[in-house]
Amino acid sequence: MIGTVHLVGAGPGAPDLLTLRAARLLAAADIVFHDALVHPDTLALATRARLVPVGKRCGKLSSAQAFINKRLVDAARRHAVVVRLKGGDPLLFGRAQEEIDALRAAGIPFEIVPGVSAAFAASAEVATSLTRRADASHAASRSVVFVTPSLASDADPSTADQWLLATLAADTAVLYMASREAGRIARGLIDGGKPAATPVAIVENASLPQATAERTTLAHLAAHGLARRDGPATLIIGEVMREADAIELAAEAILQERCRAA
Amino acid sequence: MIGTVHLVGAGPGAPDLLTLRAARLLAAADIVFHDALVHPDTLALATRARLVPVGKRCGKLSSAQAFINKRLVDAARRHAVVVRLKGGDPLLFGRAQEEIDALRAAGIPFEIVPGVSAAFAASAEVATSLTRRADASHAASRSVVFVTPSLASDADPSTADQWLLATLAADTAVLYMASREAGRIARGLIDGGKPAATPVAIVENASLPQATAERTTLAHLAAHGLARRDGPATLIIGEVMREADAIELAAEAILQERCRAA
Repeated sequence: MIGTVHLVGAGPGAPDLLTLRAARLLAAADIVFHDALVHPDTLALATRARLVPVGKRCGKLSSAQAFINKRLVDAARRHAVVVRLKGGDPLLFGRAQEEIDALRAAGIPFEIVPGVSAAFAASAEVATSLTRRADASHAASRSVVFVTPSLASDADPSTADQWLLATLAADTAVLYMASREAGRIARGLIDGGKPAATPVAIVENASLPQATAERTTLAHLAAHGLARRDGPATLIIGEVMREADAIELAAEAILQERCRAA
Repeated sequence: MIGTVHLVGAGPGAPDLLTLRAARLLAAADIVFHDALVHPDTLALATRARLVPVGKRCGKLSSAQAFINKRLVDAARRHAVVVRLKGGDPLLFGRAQEEIDALRAAGIPFEIVPGVSAAFAASAEVATSLTRRADASHAASRSVVFVTPSLASDADPSTADQWLLATLAADTAVLYMASREAGRIARGLIDGGKPAATPVAIVENASLPQATAERTTLAHLAAHGLARRDGPATLIIGEVMREADAIELAAEAILQERCRAA
């Protein structure tokens, strides 16, 4: 027999931010290979399945990628419904291409079930849109870049700074897995020409009850870095994160009343 | 009474790519203001609610944004559960900030429920990750930019080219609402230094049964543009979209067999 491998996004953390399709597949799964940070209530939906943790955490490889690939192929030769459950969306920072290539090479059928990525939960946590139209007091944000910065010494030198250029060029930047190096990243962005006063939102454990959010600036981040975090943190950098001030909100309220009266 | 307004992502199109939380809120809603392209099966989940279409389609404003804002505020003064249902994720290209500012100004409680954005459904449709690690035959993709290009004459000239710079700098670019201007966009990217051979995937109606996907190059797109589309199209531009060739897949299969034997 040959089963199907479903590469499934588990969403940003909260169990009810799973998609309906993902919930149905978990209920039908024979075996689930899951990342380290998937919520226990999400895993509990896989009532029939053997659960196999294969996650990487904080950059430490719990299972080498080639070994995960092999296990997926082997499982599809024994089970009808194999789920590979990844945090967020499987096709963003999930190393899914290596698994897809291995499944293709082995002739194993597969499908991909998209999920809600952390950036969207993080921006929801601060109730601020990643994009906006221009108006009298705001520039437009029409481009949002999602980045994993690589300051590590093992980075390919030919592409080592490409993420920095992309982060500088986009109106809004969302940095994944960046909390450890946040100070150096902020200094790099300021050196690259990003205004030091650019607002930054730092969201930890987005979508979970223990979520925290704080707002700061590139300058402050460059000077102080980030205190050590327990959960995964997402940084959102850009003018969209500048908080509307009291005067703006009051003006908006007056306009609304006029609309209402008119 | 003052109700709560829930700004909810409807996901990319397929009704089962809705989140569990969104499905629960639709079932509880008293009134739902929805975009034009939300699937009828998704709207059917709102069994108790009055459904109010307020969508924009193909750039044509069916309801002016200020009027939508006012209706949300008014609805929250009459109903306990107000849902504003937006395609994809509410905080990416959804004009949500204007609604959030209006709700804040009026003192209306609100929450944001993230959703799966079209980019993720589009990349799933072509089974290709938006990011990848570097290996012997591939450069890394560590940055993905999401863009709505503005070639329209009403674009703010001071920021008109910023989206182009961001698209050039990122390893992978996903363009929303770009099919009409695809030829000019491709020429702009080539003029800006993006190699003409850069692969492009064009996905229409991602996640729906009538989805179509084709692969081409910037050069071909620059020369021919895109034929007129019926549904919303997403363009994914970058080396990640270069298809693995037969030799690569064969080499991968041989490696896997060796791993298995070892």
